[in-house]
Amino acid sequence: MTDPGRLARVRALATDAGLDGVLVTRTAGKRWLAGFRLGHGEEPTSGWSGTLLVTADRQLVLADARYTEQAEQECAGWEVRRTRGLIGEGLPPIATELGARRLGSEARAMTHADWASLGAAGLELVPLDEELEALRLTKDGDEVAAIERACALTDRCFAHLLDTVRPGMTEAEVAWEITGWFRANGAEALAFEPLVLVGARAAMPHGKATDTPVSIGQPLLVDFGCQVAGYRSDMTRTVFFGEPDAEARRRYEAVREAQQRAFEAIAVGVIGSEVHAVAMRSLEAAGLGEAFTHGLGHGIGLETHEEPRLLTWHRPLDAGMVFSLEPGVYLPGEIGIRIEDDVLLETSGPRRLTHSPSELLVL
Amino acid sequence: MTDPGRLARVRALATDAGLDGVLVTRTAGKRWLAGFRLGHGEEPTSGWSGTLLVTADRQLVLADARYTEQAEQECAGWEVRRTRGLIGEGLPPIATELGARRLGSEARAMTHADWASLGAAGLELVPLDEELEALRLTKDGDEVAAIERACALTDRCFAHLLDTVRPGMTEAEVAWEITGWFRANGAEALAFEPLVLVGARAAMPHGKATDTPVSIGQPLLVDFGCQVAGYRSDMTRTVFFGEPDAEARRRYEAVREAQQRAFEAIAVGVIGSEVHAVAMRSLEAAGLGEAFTHGLGHGIGLETHEEPRLLTWHRPLDAGMVFSLEPGVYLPGEIGIRIEDDVLLETSGPRRLTHSPSELLVL
Repeated sequence: MTDPGRLARVRALATDAGLDGVLVTRTAGKRWLAGFRLGHGEEPTSGWSGTLLVTADRQLVLADARYTEQAEQECAGWEVRRTRGLIGEGLPPIATELGARRLGSEARAMTHADWASLGAAGLELVPLDEELEALRLTKDGDEVAAIERACALTDRCFAHLLDTVRPGMTEAEVAWEITGWFRANGAEALAFEPLVLVGARAAMPHGKATDTPVSIGQPLLVDFGCQVAGYRSDMTRTVFFGEPDAEARRRYEAVREAQQRAFEAIAVGVIGSEVHAVAMRSLEAAGLGEAFTHGLGHGIGLETHEEPRLLTWHRPLDAGMVFSLEPGVYLPGEIGIRIEDDVLLETSGPRRLTHSPSELLVL
Repeated sequence: MTDPGRLARVRALATDAGLDGVLVTRTAGKRWLAGFRLGHGEEPTSGWSGTLLVTADRQLVLADARYTEQAEQECAGWEVRRTRGLIGEGLPPIATELGARRLGSEARAMTHADWASLGAAGLELVPLDEELEALRLTKDGDEVAAIERACALTDRCFAHLLDTVRPGMTEAEVAWEITGWFRANGAEALAFEPLVLVGARAAMPHGKATDTPVSIGQPLLVDFGCQVAGYRSDMTRTVFFGEPDAEARRRYEAVREAQQRAFEAIAVGVIGSEVHAVAMRSLEAAGLGEAFTHGLGHGIGLETHEEPRLLTWHRPLDAGMVFSLEPGVYLPGEIGIRIEDDVLLETSGPRRLTHSPSELLVL
C-alpha cells in the first residue's frame, strides 16, 4: 500500500533539508510508508531486511531475493529492486543512477557499520530520525481505530485472565494463556512478550516470566499487549491473590492516584515532561518518589515504544497522540506495582483506550 | 553466569588490538559472556537494554532501572551500574573513571547515533565485530548439547505436524500448532516466527503465514526452529498434499541432491564458499541455478543467523562449527522448495543434528 499523503510528507522533509532523498530503515517506517510487513527477528541489527529509498519522483524498495516477491505483493506503487544487500553493490550504484547523493537517514535504526560503509562509498547521510518519527507522532482515524481494536482485545484478554488465573499457575503459564488468547481472538501478533511477575519479582520492570507460581499473599503483575493491523496496545495491571497488608494497599493506591492525577493534567498544549512531573510529585507525597524509577509513559503506534516519551518530551502534547500512562513503584526484594493504560489525546482532552478496572482487585 | 575462559578471551582481544576495553552491545554476546537474557523486542534498535563493559580487571553491566535487578540476578561476578542510558551521562563518565578511552565495539550492532555520540564525548570506538563474533564460531560441548536438544525438539515437532496438518488448515494455524507444540514440550522460545507457505507462496523465502489453506495438489513449506538454553535450531521441509507432477518431483529431487552433495563436500579445512558452490553447481546441472537465489547456509548458535555464512565465508571450516544447509529453488507464481538441516562439523566430518526424513513425502 502506498499512502500518497505520507509519501508527500517524506518528500517535503527532504526538500526542507536540502536532501536528494530519504532512506527508511526502521521496521515501523517501512510499514507506515510502504505497507512492507516485517516481524520479530527482522530488525536492522539481525541482518538486512530491505530499505526504502524515496527521491523527488521515485520510490524504491531495495531488497534481496528473500524479500523481493513479498515487497512486490505488499508495496503497490513502489519499484522493487533486487540487490545483494544495502552496502557495496547495493545502494551506491542505484543512488548514483538516481542522482541521489545526499540522503536523510535514521541514525538510530541503521548500524554504524552500514552508515560508515555508505559514507565511504561517497554517499552523504544526514540524520533525520526525529523528523521521520515526527510524521508518525499524531495518528489518523484509521490508526486510532487499529489501536482501539488492539486495546479492546487487551481488555477482553484481561477479563479472561481474571477468570482463569489461579494460585499454582506459573508465570510462564499465564504468559502462554495471554499468547494463546490473543491468537485465538484475532490479534495479528503480540506487541511484545508478556511480562508476568509474581510478588517481589515484579520489582524488575522488564523481568522475564519463569516457573514461579502465582501464590496466595502475593501480588501478580501482568504487562501485555497485542498488535492489530500493525498497531499496538500496552497495558499493565497488578492484582492480589489474598488480602494485601495495609502497606501494600497504601502503595497500590498511591500508584493509582499518581496515574489519575497525571491523566487529569493532560491537555493539548501541556508539556509532556510536566505530566511525568505530576505523577512523580504525587508519588513523592506518598514517600515513594525514589521507587518510581522510570518514565511515566511512551508513545504507542506501529512501535510499542515510540515518541512522545513523556519523561524527555519537553514539548507540547498534541491532539492525535497516543501514549501510555504507567506509574510504578519498585522495592527490590519486596514488591513491584504498576498500573498502565493507553491514552488518546483529543482536542477536547485525554481519553483512555484501555478500560480494564484499576481498582485494587483481590482474587 | 560468568565463564572465566570467555572473559579471558575477550580481554586477550583487547590486549591484541591495543584497546582499553570492550563494549558488548549484541544480545547474543551479552548472554554468551555474562548470562544476561534478553528477548524479542529488546534488540539494540528497539531502545537501550544494557551494555557490557570489559576492561583489563573489571567487568560491568551498565543498565537502567528496568534491568538492574535482572542483571544482578543473572550476571554473577559482574558489577551492575545503574545509569539512565548509554550515551550522555551513561558510559562516558564511567569510562573516564576506569581510564578506558579506546574501546572495541560492535559497529554492526550499535546504532550510528550511539556510536557518533560516544565519539563526540571523547571515546574512541574501534570496530571489533568479526573478532567478537569469532569467539562464538566454534561451539563447546555444552553449546552443542543445547543445539542438539533444540534440533531434537524440532524433529519431534515435525513428526507431530505430519500427524496433525490436514488440507483446510491455514498457514497461520499450522504456525500456531508449531508454536504451541514447542511451548508445551520444553522449548525456551521460538528461534523465529515459523514460516509456513502453501504452493506458489513458498517462492517467497521469508513470506509470512496467512489465512491461505493447505490444499490438495499443493506443496507446503515449513521453516521453523526453537530455542533451548539460548541456543537455536532451524529446519525446513517441503511436503506435498496429493501426488506432485513429474516436474515438481524432479525439482524436489534436485534440491535434495544438492543438499546431499554439499553435505558430502564438508570437512575440516574446506572453504565455506566452496560448499555453497557445490550446491549451486548441482542445481545448475538440473537447470535450476537461477532459481537458487540465496546462500546455502548460515551459522547457528545464540543467533539464528550468524557466521559462518557459507556464501561469503572464504575461509576454512573448522571443527565445532554448526551451520545450516538449505538449498532451495524459487519459481515466482509457481513453486518454492527448500530442504534445510543443521549440521555440526566434527574432526571426523559433518554430522546432521536434525534427522527428519527428507525423502519426498506425499500426504
